[in-house]
Amino acid sequence: MDALTSRVEKALREFLAEATPPLTAIGAALEPLAEAGRAFVLQGGMRLRPSFCYWGFRATGAPEGEEIVRAAAALELLHACALVHDDVIDGSDTRRGAPAVHRKFAALHRTSGWRGDPERFGEAAAILLGDLALIWADAALEGSGFDAVTIQRAAPVWDAMRVEVMCGQYLDVVEQARGGGSAERALRVARFKSAKYTIERPLHLGAALGGGNDELMAAFSAYGLPLGEAFQLRDDLLGVYGDPDVTGKPAGDDLREGKRTVLIAYAVEAANQAQTEQLQARFGDPQLDDDGVTVLRDVIAATGAVRRVEQLIVDHTDEALRVLASADMDESARSALTDLATIATRRTE
Amino acid sequence: MDALTSRVEKALREFLAEATPPLTAIGAALEPLAEAGRAFVLQGGMRLRPSFCYWGFRATGAPEGEEIVRAAAALELLHACALVHDDVIDGSDTRRGAPAVHRKFAALHRTSGWRGDPERFGEAAAILLGDLALIWADAALEGSGFDAVTIQRAAPVWDAMRVEVMCGQYLDVVEQARGGGSAERALRVARFKSAKYTIERPLHLGAALGGGNDELMAAFSAYGLPLGEAFQLRDDLLGVYGDPDVTGKPAGDDLREGKRTVLIAYAVEAANQAQTEQLQARFGDPQLDDDGVTVLRDVIAATGAVRRVEQLIVDHTDEALRVLASADMDESARSALTDLATIATRRTE
Repeated sequence: MDALTSRVEKALREFLAEATPPLTAIGAALEPLAEAGRAFVLQGGMRLRPSFCYWGFRATGAPEGEEIVRAAAALELLHACALVHDDVIDGSDTRRGAPAVHRKFAALHRTSGWRGDPERFGEAAAILLGDLALIWADAALEGSGFDAVTIQRAAPVWDAMRVEVMCGQYLDVVEQARGGGSAERALRVARFKSAKYTIERPLHLGAALGGGNDELMAAFSAYGLPLGEAFQLRDDLLGVYGDPDVTGKPAGDDLREGKRTVLIAYAVEAANQAQTEQLQARFGDPQLDDDGVTVLRDVIAATGAVRRVEQLIVDHTDEALRVLASADMDESARSALTDLATIATRRTE
Repeated sequence: MDALTSRVEKALREFLAEATPPLTAIGAALEPLAEAGRAFVLQGGMRLRPSFCYWGFRATGAPEGEEIVRAAAALELLHACALVHDDVIDGSDTRRGAPAVHRKFAALHRTSGWRGDPERFGEAAAILLGDLALIWADAALEGSGFDAVTIQRAAPVWDAMRVEVMCGQYLDVVEQARGGGSAERALRVARFKSAKYTIERPLHLGAALGGGNDELMAAFSAYGLPLGEAFQLRDDLLGVYGDPDVTGKPAGDDLREGKRTVLIAYAVEAANQAQTEQLQARFGDPQLDDDGVTVLRDVIAATGAVRRVEQLIVDHTDEALRVLASADMDESARSALTDLATIATRRTE
């Protein structure tokens, strides 16, 4: 874990140490909710969004300080909301190698011998915990230590980012429901659900807090959007080919779920008759076993879709790095954002 | 509709006219989400929370203006989040006389002939629309026109209020799951889910925006908490005895759902052998028909629980009015808050 990530972790721990006691003050019954919030936020992820936010701030030449670390940490709380709600929406069993929040609370319901449907209870708790995380995100940004005028300057970006991620999730759900989407449609989902949310907007938020000018904002869009798409394309590949021990998600879940990614759209486009039959028979089958997962992986690779996605990742990353090289910004930020481009697109988790 | 309520409606319409176009700019697929948000927020409710917020502000002697109306309107957006998510959690079919948001989107899924489970799709859409409403609430307060320092002064109240309502919802869900709660436990749920959220915190938010002192804040707690409990007790009665044409909710839903209100706790406490048997056989039965609803209503009333709840409403309201009479505040606010106490506790919707 690098120094910045440790500082973000520390800021999150400090925030939660202040934010969770008011819950248990309301009633002891709230303790599991507070604990689940703490566990979820602290158990991980790559803290990519805070890193982009921090370096977006530093790129303006604004001085280093704890305020920007705390503000950047707010993005992890927003992300906790997005993931906890996403897991309810997708009915996912695991997240970051642990049971999804709604599954944890379903288990609490069962072991407590409570009435009603444990799954419904689990979903209710997860919906409310996600709401809490969304509120916490706001409180963390507001309480980051920046003065009121600085916070207000960043508010439009903060609002746009939050709206976009929810809209991206909705687009994603609609795409899954429609089925059979084109690569173009999958790319649009990737843009809103991931590219803007993971890279462009965190950079914008940092830059807005640092008082960055319009030119820097534009450069961050030109860098962040292709890089964010490359990030999402890597995610698509990891969803099918990733090592469960590293990703924290069971192998093949995206295949069972029938997730309409760019990878799948390319595979469908390029598949021959036999490959098409395999895809139709197995893709989106909730009962798909390990052998079926292996078959699908091989079919998708054999269509050339993996190669094509890898190439697109390289092209998009190169484009982002070209923009970065020529943009007017603080040199240490340029260097850090160059490294982050690699981390975001060559990761294995 | 009184003049203040019309101004709140106008502020909401204006806010949504700005807030929804960015959704459709993301993709035409977002239009139903934007439309559902608009419809839900604009179709109603009593706008009680904005009224309390507005008069909390005026009580400080701060001058009348559109800023406070816009800030007060933010509470309706927060409330939209709470209700849309609550309806998913409770599996409610209707809200404000129309299908619940998740039902609307399940219907959209069906008529579109999409893949997968329409109900799951509906819940996904409702979770995301609730998230959007929570974000909009924040954007509405932030963009109300108050200066940054005033907004920051009100942030702790705004955060506490939002956290409390989610925690109150969770307590409520846990209480339903545990079953058989005491009146004391039901009152605690009512305090957090409703009393603080509906009356005390809106008053505090308005007072914080107006720069009210600690004494006024304390008076608003002493007025708002008993009044808020009276408000929730009226809600309990309306949930069992209300006219569906006025409440917008089907008769008997609270009984089918097995909602552990103070009313029910009193009924269980005071029931004789025969009444206990009736309650055990019918209360919480999802299949309860209209005749069953009538039987339960009569049993609950026969235990004396209705009388006891009505008396508690009177006592709590009197207590609130006593506090109000002696608190140091602007006279027009005192007069308006006196009227609001009656509106909140004698309402039929």
